[in-house]
Amino acid sequence: MSDTAHQINNERQVALDILKQRFGERASTAPSVLERHGQGEGYFAPIPPELVIFAETTEEVAAVVSICAEHKVPVIPYGTGTSLEGHLAAVEGGVSIDLSAMNAVLEVNAEDLDCRVQAGVTRKQLNEHLRDTGLFFPIDPGADASIGGMSATRASGTNAVRYGTMRENVLGLTVVLADGRIIKTGGRAKKSAAGYDLTRLFVGSEGTLGIITEVQLRLYGIPEAITSAVCQYPDLEAAVNTVILTIQSGIPVARIEILDDVQMAACIRYSELEGYEDKPTLFFEFHGTDASAAEQAEMVKDLSDEFGGSAFQWTAHQEERTKLWQARHDAFYAALRLAPGKVGMPTDVCVPISNLAECLLETKRDIAETGVLAPIVGHVGDGNFHLVMLFDEEDEAEKQRCKDLVERMNHRAIAFGGTCTGEHGIGYGKKHFLTHEHGEAVAVMRTLKQAMDPDNIMNPGKIVSL
Amino acid sequence: MSDTAHQINNERQVALDILKQRFGERASTAPSVLERHGQGEGYFAPIPPELVIFAETTEEVAAVVSICAEHKVPVIPYGTGTSLEGHLAAVEGGVSIDLSAMNAVLEVNAEDLDCRVQAGVTRKQLNEHLRDTGLFFPIDPGADASIGGMSATRASGTNAVRYGTMRENVLGLTVVLADGRIIKTGGRAKKSAAGYDLTRLFVGSEGTLGIITEVQLRLYGIPEAITSAVCQYPDLEAAVNTVILTIQSGIPVARIEILDDVQMAACIRYSELEGYEDKPTLFFEFHGTDASAAEQAEMVKDLSDEFGGSAFQWTAHQEERTKLWQARHDAFYAALRLAPGKVGMPTDVCVPISNLAECLLETKRDIAETGVLAPIVGHVGDGNFHLVMLFDEEDEAEKQRCKDLVERMNHRAIAFGGTCTGEHGIGYGKKHFLTHEHGEAVAVMRTLKQAMDPDNIMNPGKIVSL
Repeated sequence: MSDTAHQINNERQVALDILKQRFGERASTAPSVLERHGQGEGYFAPIPPELVIFAETTEEVAAVVSICAEHKVPVIPYGTGTSLEGHLAAVEGGVSIDLSAMNAVLEVNAEDLDCRVQAGVTRKQLNEHLRDTGLFFPIDPGADASIGGMSATRASGTNAVRYGTMRENVLGLTVVLADGRIIKTGGRAKKSAAGYDLTRLFVGSEGTLGIITEVQLRLYGIPEAITSAVCQYPDLEAAVNTVILTIQSGIPVARIEILDDVQMAACIRYSELEGYEDKPTLFFEFHGTDASAAEQAEMVKDLSDEFGGSAFQWTAHQEERTKLWQARHDAFYAALRLAPGKVGMPTDVCVPISNLAECLLETKRDIAETGVLAPIVGHVGDGNFHLVMLFDEEDEAEKQRCKDLVERMNHRAIAFGGTCTGEHGIGYGKKHFLTHEHGEAVAVMRTLKQAMDPDNIMNPGKIVSL
Repeated sequence: MSDTAHQINNERQVALDILKQRFGERASTAPSVLERHGQGEGYFAPIPPELVIFAETTEEVAAVVSICAEHKVPVIPYGTGTSLEGHLAAVEGGVSIDLSAMNAVLEVNAEDLDCRVQAGVTRKQLNEHLRDTGLFFPIDPGADASIGGMSATRASGTNAVRYGTMRENVLGLTVVLADGRIIKTGGRAKKSAAGYDLTRLFVGSEGTLGIITEVQLRLYGIPEAITSAVCQYPDLEAAVNTVILTIQSGIPVARIEILDDVQMAACIRYSELEGYEDKPTLFFEFHGTDASAAEQAEMVKDLSDEFGGSAFQWTAHQEERTKLWQARHDAFYAALRLAPGKVGMPTDVCVPISNLAECLLETKRDIAETGVLAPIVGHVGDGNFHLVMLFDEEDEAEKQRCKDLVERMNHRAIAFGGTCTGEHGIGYGKKHFLTHEHGEAVAVMRTLKQAMDPDNIMNPGKIVSL
């Protein structure tokens, strides 16, 4: 080991010792804790950090970052561990800061349809808290992720077609910067033209520019009427064309989700859905007044009929709706059950809606030619869809075939004018696609990273490398 | 003059000479041209640039910036000259790049509800172009501003309550950076989690980080039904409370605009509106299907009745609607007519809706105590309102009283949890408020500016100073 490497290791050890002393029982080096904090729900092998700190306040996060900054030790924020592109892997070692104990809803301003939460609050916890206010927070990426993590990865999910993504729904943030300073971005006004949009810069920055510790969010009134419907189609194209026409007609559907025949078969079995066939299927949800929700549904039904959709199966009752959407959320687990012993490699892309049919059908053909099991689900109202490729961890050849499929799918989406990720983020799994998609603009991202984190300690190796 | 100053001036002269030679007739030093390019529609005295280049392509803009970068000469982008906070003032001299000839609509993707335009296209020109497609671009700041300028200042206006601001409606950009590189940000997918949100960083950056030369925009289908209504109230509080309850009820009004008694009196006279009184007034617009627009209107009418609003005066006919909204757009000119010979000092703030009534009423009292003429208008559905203070340019004391009023109004809005500008931007007129509002976050803005424009040539002296 060279002198410099020795020096770096010594420096790092000094920082870790200071942190252990300061945080006592809230500093952990237990192997199981380290391993859990070094991975998300993707297929990437865990890369554990050297230390986990369970922080309880913004000031504590700032103190950890200050100590790490002084000794040039990487820091990686951790919420619920549900990210998918290797965001949590400690590729250069360092300290994981677990924010899950920062789970206070700080204020709810019902009159202004906003609230402020600590980063560790999960979306379900928030909606539980809001239960008696008549308000809800719509963004729903499936997992019960933390609001901090959802902000950091620009999450979206099933409701985004109507309510937007975290990009549209975060009003402001408290952020700990790479040198330990604490700033507040944005504010409670619904709009502002006051300076650079730092809020949007941190939303989607995956912990590489700062650590989000508090989030101001937009809320919405719970609609007077919520109705769901399920409709099945003779083929994928018919289902997709129904989606395209719905969006192009400007019908404000709250959710419009696709499951291909393979995924639907998996869900029917896993979630014990009755009365459905193994066919391409759309799940719809309509929000509005009684009259407007009914009108939307009627309009979509007419479009659906044109493409040979089955009769709408209605699920206006809360209990049935919950079961249906739970089945949709469990699609990943249902897919895994298709091939016991195999693991899932999830990936997502997003394309302009006019190219959705072609992109989906080409992908479906590619799956068939590749000879892997890979159900398709998608938030198709936004042009966003996912594959879960099932592979045997022992079978390197199968794993490689899946990886090659991901390569082709992402390049295809970019060629169709789309993006290499609608909602999962870049992490370290998709960095090469980012360059392919954004070209010289990635150099600007690197300039920003360099300016805000010159020692490259904030979740290093993610999004861009210095 | 010191040797260094000489050297700087010589360098600058070299750059100007190169540009004049290269652009020939499209390079102007005519005093009237310079003066026009050194001011917007605010009350700031013009600070002319040294040269105006009329650019026709992104590559030309990049060439101008490259030459200016080499010789460290400031560059200031110019669209239609309708900004309000001194954005165009050449406070450090340099070159104004006029983009008005870059006025091509490059593509309309009707199926995807998006389009791409050159920065010099104005919003009215775009809507004219879209006329036969059944689509429209909703953002309407009043002035027929260029899309590039609207993006650069994060414009919004009357429709923002329903359709969002430029922040929500710009999908991607072509930008010339401070060193002349050209990048593309964002894309055509409706959402993306791929890397830092450069699009949102440039939107609202007022030309200080780069020059926007092309914009990808979201479009919307023209609603089946558009109806407008006008309602008058016994006092300002009743009008504002109607607004607050409408927003809190989640009714998706497309426009909800306030005019106080002074402004309404001005508009009645200027625009020859018949059948109205000099009272606080709300202008509404409802978009939707026939049924849903009618339902929205009915709900708002019920709320309005509770606060003693007069009967809705309906204006469903296109011609009447146009007249009404033209009167709203001409409010500034109508206000000026109230005091011939005086000029207007416009300012805007935005607060959380729950504080709107109190903030507006305090401001109204402040105006009365100050003893100036200052009608109030506002995009109140967003909590955003404007004053136009009328003052005599020769009367320094009156001008100072107006400036003091602006100070108090902005500090009041910030104290109410709001922002020092909802839509006019910072320019050089509001830099001190920015610090007051955002504190340490302004240091981060400065870090970004320094990183992306180290020689401080991009519209220097605006938003943040280096």
